[in-house]
Amino acid sequence: MMYDAAIIGAGPAGLSAAINLKLHNKSVIWFGSKAMSDKVEKSESIANYPGMGIISGSELNEKFLKHAKSLDLEVEDKMVTDISVTGKGFMILAENSVYEAEKLLLATGYVAAKGFENEDRLLGRGVSYCATCDGFFYKGKTIAVFCGAERYEHEVKYLSEIAEKIYLFTPYKGESELDSIENIERLKSPIKTIEGENKADAVILVDGTKVDIDGIFVLRTAVAPATVLKGLEMDGPHIKVDRETLATNIKGCYAAGDCTGRPYQIAVAVGEGNLAAHSMLED
Amino acid sequence: MMYDAAIIGAGPAGLSAAINLKLHNKSVIWFGSKAMSDKVEKSESIANYPGMGIISGSELNEKFLKHAKSLDLEVEDKMVTDISVTGKGFMILAENSVYEAEKLLLATGYVAAKGFENEDRLLGRGVSYCATCDGFFYKGKTIAVFCGAERYEHEVKYLSEIAEKIYLFTPYKGESELDSIENIERLKSPIKTIEGENKADAVILVDGTKVDIDGIFVLRTAVAPATVLKGLEMDGPHIKVDRETLATNIKGCYAAGDCTGRPYQIAVAVGEGNLAAHSMLED
Repeated sequence: MMYDAAIIGAGPAGLSAAINLKLHNKSVIWFGSKAMSDKVEKSESIANYPGMGIISGSELNEKFLKHAKSLDLEVEDKMVTDISVTGKGFMILAENSVYEAEKLLLATGYVAAKGFENEDRLLGRGVSYCATCDGFFYKGKTIAVFCGAERYEHEVKYLSEIAEKIYLFTPYKGESELDSIENIERLKSPIKTIEGENKADAVILVDGTKVDIDGIFVLRTAVAPATVLKGLEMDGPHIKVDRETLATNIKGCYAAGDCTGRPYQIAVAVGEGNLAAHSMLED
Repeated sequence: MMYDAAIIGAGPAGLSAAINLKLHNKSVIWFGSKAMSDKVEKSESIANYPGMGIISGSELNEKFLKHAKSLDLEVEDKMVTDISVTGKGFMILAENSVYEAEKLLLATGYVAAKGFENEDRLLGRGVSYCATCDGFFYKGKTIAVFCGAERYEHEVKYLSEIAEKIYLFTPYKGESELDSIENIERLKSPIKTIEGENKADAVILVDGTKVDIDGIFVLRTAVAPATVLKGLEMDGPHIKVDRETLATNIKGCYAAGDCTGRPYQIAVAVGEGNLAAHSMLED
């Protein structure tokens, strides 16, 4: 089926857009985490979302989830790995499924513009965003895994059952079940560069160490938008938008929330999600 | 005292800005209705303010009020009738008091750009925005009163005790206590133009009727911003802003919410209030 709109990202901006499109009877496919926004969830206290008083991030996130459910909006908990522009709209590859939508909203939050050095260039050639899709090809091999959030740890576990050896990198702190798995070695220094001529064959860490690998899995809450959607114009680390409509340089594609720039604020994100939805309705 | 910021308007945009400035320890003078937003209050049901589910306007307004109170933010329930630019910021005349602030935020909601025809030109010369300030001058005279909201009816009553005769115009429907006051005559056709060479001496109604008067009181929930702040650049009925910062053409003066344009949405207004506050903090 052809959806009226696809939304990438289940934070405040994505939610606000999803609500407005749904209320206008549009069919929406919405990608993100079933747990909504990690960033909101982890905020200890939020005092400047008007009407909520002083509220914990997890309480607010719970209210966001409840609001979505009350409108029968459900998040497709799949990582979007590629988006292409077709004559009629957009074709979206999420793990192993393909979706089509007329309009597209990027509400991916703030992510580094291009991920790791060379990540973009080597994507599909030793760099993968999807354990379920590509894990199989690394049977008996040595791989690096960047696990961007705790909720992806089950994918790391899955990869540990296939690969011979895993070098694990996490941006968050704390031990986990993964540390008791024999073929997983956690490295402290973060990844700086992915190396390889035609195929990823090593990672260089910030401390200068070179680690030889057969491939790397990058499991992020959000993939850098310019990496999955070729030709998307950026402004430094942010998606370039027309501020009046939140349109990007690609026809039919809009962006809202932290991915469009500062200030990184929940209130601003819901405002932009609402504005983008209205632009999409008028487009 | 010199306030860090003055905010005109107690709707969602003004509230959002007030919260953020207050949380940054700025001193704020905030003008508007103690009852916050009339427009929110009168919305039967709001489904697209993320996190609130489906909520009545009056419930949401109540939450806004509670949030403001929890931060010791209080609205000064006075009508701003004039703003002038000084070397150090802004001087604000509200009824009979003068306030000074370094930065200014206009969050006045949507109001017609210039009010009635000639309202701007004849302000202070037979056109008044303030019954308490100027009522006294119309003892025994014939006046027109445009009463923009029910909460100003007590001012109309006050004027009826001074003036000989009042022609009353209201944009809302329904009879009230005012209809039982002998010297008040309610006219059905709306005002089109205020007439007068050097002083307002008549109003022309939409149906063509000419009504002779000695003066006119315009009691609006919000006064057209370009009328109270000379030199403010408009874009049709909206205040012209730089979309990146919400700055207006006047240095130190910002605008947020419905007064900056469509879509007229609560979520957009709180986003803009937040953004404007951050711009003011960085300015």
